[in-house]
Amino acid sequence: METVATKSLKFDAQGLLPAIVQDAETDQVLMLAYMNAESLQLTLSRRETYFWSRSRNELWHKGATSGNVQHVDEVSVDCDADTLLIRVHPAGPACHTGNQTCFYRHVETLA
Amino acid sequence: METVATKSLKFDAQGLLPAIVQDAETDQVLMLAYMNAESLQLTLSRRETYFWSRSRNELWHKGATSGNVQHVDEVSVDCDADTLLIRVHPAGPACHTGNQTCFYRHVETLA
Repeated sequence: METVATKSLKFDAQGLLPAIVQDAETDQVLMLAYMNAESLQLTLSRRETYFWSRSRNELWHKGATSGNVQHVDEVSVDCDADTLLIRVHPAGPACHTGNQTCFYRHVETLA
Repeated sequence: METVATKSLKFDAQGLLPAIVQDAETDQVLMLAYMNAESLQLTLSRRETYFWSRSRNELWHKGATSGNVQHVDEVSVDCDADTLLIRVHPAGPACHTGNQTCFYRHVETLA
């Protein structure tokens, strides 16, 4: 697989990239959060997920409080270099509701 | 599975939601794009993916030109109601490069 240097990534006007988190064992999509350059570097070097919390405006080590850290298997980037895909081995549920994934609800179809 | 009405979704200041597209057969994450209310309604009613192109500033029916439409299997939303997950049966590669997924490159590890 080709590689991309972190300096080539296209952070947005707020210095952020959306990061999709996927379970490396089940392939379930767990959550989407945002990374700035610092949280990405920590994610790459420590092999656990770090994000930038847009609501709290602070660095966020996923699982620091709950214990549900996400061990990083691989980090990919899309063709536009503006979205990350992080494959992880989660130590517990991704969602603060206790659900394994944050995507536990359907959108109502109005067909 | 619980359902959420489209009127409860938290569109951002630009009226958009990020939408993760996942292959319903292989579970591969294919791409991330953005939906406004109109493209979401079209996606739900026509069962093919529609997005809002931020670069071209226009409604975008995925596959209209290439033929690589994405047949929609299910649409989920996360706990914050600000990100969509769309599971699809793709008629062809998701990426304009011809790759099955847009996430075909690793981010260089600087550990």
